[in-house]
Amino acid sequence: MTGRQLHLNAFLMNTGHHEASWRLPESDPYASVDVAHYRNLAQVAERGTFDSLFLADGPVLFNSVGQRPSGTLEPLTLLTALAGATEHIGLIATASTSYNLPYNLARTFASLDHISGGRAGWNIVTTAGAEAARNFGLDAEPSHATRYQRAAEFLDVAFKLWDSWEDDLIVGDKAAGVWGDTAKLHPAGHRGPYFQVEGALNVPRSPQGYPLLVQAGSSEDGKSFAARYAEAVFTAQQTLGDAQEFYADVKARTRRAGRDPEGIKILPGIVPVIGDTEAEARRREAELEDHIVYEHGLYQLAHILHVEPGALDLDAGLPADLPTEDEIEGAKSRYTLVVELARRESLTVRELIGRLGGGRGHRTFTGTPEQVADAIEEWFHAGAADGFNIMPPVLPSGLELFVDHVVPILRSRGLLRTEYTPGQTLRERYGLPRPDNQYAAGAPAYALAAL
Amino acid sequence: MTGRQLHLNAFLMNTGHHEASWRLPESDPYASVDVAHYRNLAQVAERGTFDSLFLADGPVLFNSVGQRPSGTLEPLTLLTALAGATEHIGLIATASTSYNLPYNLARTFASLDHISGGRAGWNIVTTAGAEAARNFGLDAEPSHATRYQRAAEFLDVAFKLWDSWEDDLIVGDKAAGVWGDTAKLHPAGHRGPYFQVEGALNVPRSPQGYPLLVQAGSSEDGKSFAARYAEAVFTAQQTLGDAQEFYADVKARTRRAGRDPEGIKILPGIVPVIGDTEAEARRREAELEDHIVYEHGLYQLAHILHVEPGALDLDAGLPADLPTEDEIEGAKSRYTLVVELARRESLTVRELIGRLGGGRGHRTFTGTPEQVADAIEEWFHAGAADGFNIMPPVLPSGLELFVDHVVPILRSRGLLRTEYTPGQTLRERYGLPRPDNQYAAGAPAYALAAL
Ligand SMILES: Cc1cc2nc3c(=O)[nH]c(=O)nc-3n(C[C@H](O)[C@H](O)[C@H](O)COP(=O)(O)O)c2cc1C
Ligand SMILES: Cc1cc2nc3c(=O)[nH]c(=O)nc-3n(C[C@H](O)[C@H](O)[C@H](O)COP(=O)(O)O)c2cc1C
Repeated sequence: MTGRQLHLNAFLMNTGHHEASWRLPESDPYASVDVAHYRNLAQVAERGTFDSLFLADGPVLFNSVGQRPSGTLEPLTLLTALAGATEHIGLIATASTSYNLPYNLARTFASLDHISGGRAGWNIVTTAGAEAARNFGLDAEPSHATRYQRAAEFLDVAFKLWDSWEDDLIVGDKAAGVWGDTAKLHPAGHRGPYFQVEGALNVPRSPQGYPLLVQAGSSEDGKSFAARYAEAVFTAQQTLGDAQEFYADVKARTRRAGRDPEGIKILPGIVPVIGDTEAEARRREAELEDHIVYEHGLYQLAHILHVEPGALDLDAGLPADLPTEDEIEGAKSRYTLVVELARRESLTVRELIGRLGGGRGHRTFTGTPEQVADAIEEWFHAGAADGFNIMPPVLPSGLELFVDHVVPILRSRGLLRTEYTPGQTLRERYGLPRPDNQYAAGAPAYALAAL
Repeated sequence: MTGRQLHLNAFLMNTGHHEASWRLPESDPYASVDVAHYRNLAQVAERGTFDSLFLADGPVLFNSVGQRPSGTLEPLTLLTALAGATEHIGLIATASTSYNLPYNLARTFASLDHISGGRAGWNIVTTAGAEAARNFGLDAEPSHATRYQRAAEFLDVAFKLWDSWEDDLIVGDKAAGVWGDTAKLHPAGHRGPYFQVEGALNVPRSPQGYPLLVQAGSSEDGKSFAARYAEAVFTAQQTLGDAQEFYADVKARTRRAGRDPEGIKILPGIVPVIGDTEAEARRREAELEDHIVYEHGLYQLAHILHVEPGALDLDAGLPADLPTEDEIEGAKSRYTLVVELARRESLTVRELIGRLGGGRGHRTFTGTPEQVADAIEEWFHAGAADGFNIMPPVLPSGLELFVDHVVPILRSRGLLRTEYTPGQTLRERYGLPRPDNQYAAGAPAYALAAL
């Protein structure tokens, strides 16, 4: 195969991305803590030669347990278990810079990278919401700007720790009794406004140097952060136009940050509702919508919009007097996407909840495998995507449908590998270079940390 | 088999517990980050029907990389990988209450417990030393008393989080659209001097309720903490008399804390140096001692004793003017053990370093498999131990020798299981009850947290 290749990431989530997936007869309501469920999903994604799989996260109980599957296995722990059940696929865990300590998190990612043979990735998030803050001794959510400042310093500390061992530090000279070359050890010696970290990491430098860095914030601060640090970007985009604009914007910011725009891969999300015929796919979509509990959806929508649930009427449009994005200290870009979607399509609150039910703001595409492949290819060739975040509405069946019916089409069109190149790291699979160690003799100026 | 049974824990550490193990021809200097090395060790221990395996930890680069293998995989991550490579054996990770956040750590342990089917254990440590403190924004080590106060509150928060889901919260009523019973969710609502944690854990209650709680501090504060919380205690004891005294002391404290003394298992460490004949075992021991680099040992000993290395003379005894245990803010009990060992046996500093080389203060026992089994049985029947922490001097060979030659003897004497009871949790294997949920209707007063 030649030509530009798609990057595919499988976004795994309990019984599926559709709000109501757990209510289908095929779904297991206990799937969220069943490692066998996830092991199966990882193996199906690997059968489909996906680049990676991904788990979202927040250190908080997000959804009310009354409404839908809540509570999961902690992503870094679960991915470590999946490392042993797979051989090639990348393993991307979300972790928060607001509610972790850099020494601990840097260690865990370095360890996962060693254990998986260079397959670790980190979806860097700053975690919106006061509920999470209150699990960590804070009374209120730190401001959006503060969270991104802490995130930037967190990354700088993490780079120092991951580079604190040069790659060839270990010499293992048994005769001389010298295990390592102390000149190649570089304690972090970091003193900043958010963090003071003195020592070196207690994990040797890992196969990838550090995990693939992924980011998913689409606000101004989010995009600047991505331009500076991210190697892959997850994003929710509803229309081709918006996606093209976002793609061009992030690539341009990356260039302005002094980095190669090829070094950042943009992956919009897509919720593929697949049927043998278009009619069957629509029936599948309708079946899912029938299972939505609209009163629950109302609460979630109110949360995104930062209004009281009582301010929303299921059978009317959105109220006129919503806050502006500037006033949102939580997830800014998701707020704007939802409001624009409702206004653009003149949706009632009920219709809006139905549209968000599939992927919480991600684009739902309903059709035959051929149509799904066309939709993917269109955006890929139109400067809107380097690949996709595949978000099956129901799991495992939606991932199986994609792998068994859409993947063969993408392969036949020369858009996707037919097998893995053995021994590749996750970063190599995404076509990205292994980062130099900032302390190594002859290392060029450290592109990512320099700014 | 009837009668009282031994509990065996395999303490795994790089190429072995002996300081010089990495220098033997058989050892792999890169073992510390090789998951395959640990997978093999775990499978050997499982072949020996050990109750559990264990990894020590500190969030700091302990040893100088020049001297001996340093840096490891983070224990919770490594144990998660080992969960997938084993079926029965318990998985005990060390984690620090001083340098973790309770919400994160409670999640990770609950996740490991789910993933392993109820095999998780936590060796609760407070982490001595200023070096660790300086990796977490502190300039100096918090005092010994402060660390133990924080540890106690950390445990109280962890219990609230692990109990925040009642066992039968999930109902999964698809028809009604009700996933869980919200009346069975109990947000932590914790406000204490060290921690404020508002919400419920985002992991359903795990198979064991919470991990087996292990503790290894032998100071006054350490023993009180163990009496209150621990279900198993690791300890370094050099003589039968000391071990008996420690055993009786911890059991009595546990009784005074209102708990059943049978509910706490005492496991002294033993470094078994095994040979077909006693002479071969002694040769093995001498070979290891020959590989000790005494200048390095001097630095480590000075660190334990809180003196300058220059104050120690390899060919003289310990100086007379050492600090007292009260003045030690680091590892109090280990300090005292080392000083007493040197004084009791009138050792030179060189001899002391040789004695500590095997197990850093743990008892080394050198002999035939029969003699090792006798040594174990003697302490077991003399009221000094409920089982042992097996610390092979060289890995994997020392563990293989133990499993292939000592385990059959222990089995033939009726002291150790010949196979695992399928489906047992770690806590069941140690003969301990599953903890009640403190919030469940009809739950008795919460024995561990009540104090
Ligand atoms: C595909 C995708 C996955 C995301 N996963 C997470 C997640 O796991 N945890 C989280 O806190 N935020 C997650 N986010 C949200 C973003 O990280 C970010 O917080 C959100 O877009 C708001 O950021 P902004 O205010 O910069 O737009 C995700 C976003 C996208 C598009
Ligand atoms: C077998 C054993 C294993 C231990 N493992 C650790 C460890 O992994 N990390 C740690 O910080 N301390 C470890 N310790 C030390 C104890 O947790 C404790 O810090 C030490 O004994 C000093 O505590 P004390 O001052 O209460 O005696 C271990 C002790 C023993 C006996």
